[in-house]
Amino acid sequence: MTAGTDARDSSSIGVFDSGVGGLTVLRALRERLPGESLIYLGDTARLPYGTKSPRVVARYAENAARVLVERGVKMLVIACNTATAEALPHLERVFAPLPVVGVVEPGAEAACEASRNGHILVVATEGTVKSGAYARAIRSRRPGAVVRSAACSLFVALAEEGWVDGPIVESVVRRYLAPVVREDPSVDCMVLGCTHFPVLRDAIARVVGPGITLVDSAMTTARVVADRLRSRGMLAPPVNAAALELMATDARARFARVGAVFLGATISESQVEIVDL
Amino acid sequence: MTAGTDARDSSSIGVFDSGVGGLTVLRALRERLPGESLIYLGDTARLPYGTKSPRVVARYAENAARVLVERGVKMLVIACNTATAEALPHLERVFAPLPVVGVVEPGAEAACEASRNGHILVVATEGTVKSGAYARAIRSRRPGAVVRSAACSLFVALAEEGWVDGPIVESVVRRYLAPVVREDPSVDCMVLGCTHFPVLRDAIARVVGPGITLVDSAMTTARVVADRLRSRGMLAPPVNAAALELMATDARARFARVGAVFLGATISESQVEIVDL
Repeated sequence: MTAGTDARDSSSIGVFDSGVGGLTVLRALRERLPGESLIYLGDTARLPYGTKSPRVVARYAENAARVLVERGVKMLVIACNTATAEALPHLERVFAPLPVVGVVEPGAEAACEASRNGHILVVATEGTVKSGAYARAIRSRRPGAVVRSAACSLFVALAEEGWVDGPIVESVVRRYLAPVVREDPSVDCMVLGCTHFPVLRDAIARVVGPGITLVDSAMTTARVVADRLRSRGMLAPPVNAAALELMATDARARFARVGAVFLGATISESQVEIVDL
Repeated sequence: MTAGTDARDSSSIGVFDSGVGGLTVLRALRERLPGESLIYLGDTARLPYGTKSPRVVARYAENAARVLVERGVKMLVIACNTATAEALPHLERVFAPLPVVGVVEPGAEAACEASRNGHILVVATEGTVKSGAYARAIRSRRPGAVVRSAACSLFVALAEEGWVDGPIVESVVRRYLAPVVREDPSVDCMVLGCTHFPVLRDAIARVVGPGITLVDSAMTTARVVADRLRSRGMLAPPVNAAALELMATDARARFARVGAVFLGATISESQVEIVDL
């Protein structure tokens, strides 16, 4: 029997997000773990999660996760900062003993590695900021850290619209971030605490300047996923034809069109399976 | 027996929207029909509707309408252009013989009255534009009309964020509308075909200039509601203390804060009842 036919080794990693933003995490996973089959669900019928209450986010996240669990995944990745901030312990309880990896801890780890002086700015959705999850995760690693945060709701809309650069984007970035950088000019690291935000990275970097290092959770999450799988002996052997399944709860054409920006690869409409939650 | 105790006369008008945008319609109804009790439901857990498919919008709209119908309303007002465009006939069928009024026909009527030359621009969400509902409604009244349209998804996010004026808003307006006005310089009337957009009216007017009349469906919808009630003998007598009930499916604090901009009146959190659909 080859490793490829062992059910435990060959089952997929399930990844979900409120929409297409989590495809930045999927992209990092594909690069880091080319042998793993990946199955992705974007809850496009109910996005965005970032302005919803913790109660509703937890319920929606559980629904989305259940679709993946029923397809037999070996690990669950919450590729959405808001859902991680507000539902990770809940999903761990509901789906135990399935390992569940969120994006907040990896994002906090990346920030603590990148910051020299511990002045860290978290930019995220309203829900993630309110949860305080990043501040807790950063301070648990670096107790003296000074953590600022800014809720940047419009970044999501800009990214979804495909407006990722240019004067409008820079003006919006400046309006959100200038006051907080003015308040603490020592900030030397910024966490892009929403999976939509990495596509705006160039515009954000231009506005805040070279003194602030931008980190996002996608790469670190992929590393954490690889470490967790390896430590449990669950890594798939590297193969060339690992499967990629894409599901959404609505709007196939929009998912394919906007999702390509985040995945960094073309998505054809026929690739996207629509599921009801 | 006074008119006030007659069940048919005294029951409320039910109004629903995907979120807070429909409060612009509620405001117009309050001004026009001060004697009517109004009950409003914003489906804030699942907004926005404007980027969702017709199938999902119809399902969500039916759920929202059912909550109102179960509370015993005498008329249903769909205070959301996307839900009107994609679900009005469906809701009329499901809840017959309850009268259902949408915002698209009144918006089209207002545009046809305001335009001198019949060159009309519809600005709306992606869903409303794709449905073609406005173009059909305008041409059925004015067969020779030249109808242009522009999907302006970011307007919703700007309005929800409370960014209703200033250089960023004007830049966004210009980016969406300049190309279409350049394409047809004869446009002399613009329909704000989303209940979120009236709060951006000043900025939009400044960008497009005085040659284009802006109309929205709120005032015309209130007139249509009044006419329909009057013709059926269902108008409530004018009283000073008509009830106003506000419900949302999520995020009470946000509903109160952002909703005040649209209602043009303060909303206290305790006024907002949270309901599950």
